[in-house]
Amino acid sequence: MTPGSDEYYMKMALTEAEKAAGRDEVPVGAVVVAAGTVIARAHNLTETLNDPTAHAEMQAITAATSYLGGKYLTGCTLYVTVEPCVMCAGALAWSQVTTLVWGAPDPKKGFTTTGADILHPKTEVRTGVMAEECSAIMKKFFRKKRDNS
Amino acid sequence: MTPGSDEYYMKMALTEAEKAAGRDEVPVGAVVVAAGTVIARAHNLTETLNDPTAHAEMQAITAATSYLGGKYLTGCTLYVTVEPCVMCAGALAWSQVTTLVWGAPDPKKGFTTTGADILHPKTEVRTGVMAEECSAIMKKFFRKKRDNS
Repeated sequence: MTPGSDEYYMKMALTEAEKAAGRDEVPVGAVVVAAGTVIARAHNLTETLNDPTAHAEMQAITAATSYLGGKYLTGCTLYVTVEPCVMCAGALAWSQVTTLVWGAPDPKKGFTTTGADILHPKTEVRTGVMAEECSAIMKKFFRKKRDNS
Repeated sequence: MTPGSDEYYMKMALTEAEKAAGRDEVPVGAVVVAAGTVIARAHNLTETLNDPTAHAEMQAITAATSYLGGKYLTGCTLYVTVEPCVMCAGALAWSQVTTLVWGAPDPKKGFTTTGADILHPKTEVRTGVMAEECSAIMKKFFRKKRDNS
């Protein structure tokens, strides 16, 4: 795995997703990279915080903009293990993030299912990075949930 | 103005919007009501917090779910002075809020401009409550911005 590659940062996002799984949260993780430096890491905390807005991407955006001291993520890349939902895509649009990279698709709740142009028109998108690993951790989580219910 | 009416709570949301204007923030305010009790009040703080996710609705959702101790707003009504954007509508969908009431439409950034079904299918929507007042505070803010630029 080449340092600085998409896979390199997606692996970090996966580590965040694993932290979420460890807290019995839907395992989604995100990192934000600016000029080769990771400026935010976050994982889904909706159950822990009793907050439906506490998705990995939302927290990563808040942390990254706080770090940068401005409300935009121009020049940044956000990596997230699963395709963002409508809420997160809307937040990414406001942030004007330069690049968005996701791993696994989300055929149920992913923003692309709406067919609407939600992201900022200048945001570049790359998908399918470590998709199998990003999907596997989700499948494992929901299988365990089903087995325990 | 009848206590407990839509106008009654929208007036509270407008008071929040005025607080935002006082901080040089785009003046949008929101309140969440559960069983006749206001459980959250919030206004836009994107500039103050350097956070594009800090819309009035997002903060109101976070505060209300925190108060209720769960991640859903079933049984609640969220009042907001302006039609929610895609991000906020997506968050409201996750919250499964029972009723959403907004004042002024947002023909540029309102979620209805996407044409997509973003809200939870069970969420009831009422619009146009004190629309003139909710719109006037926005127009005044942007006019002042233009005059000062």
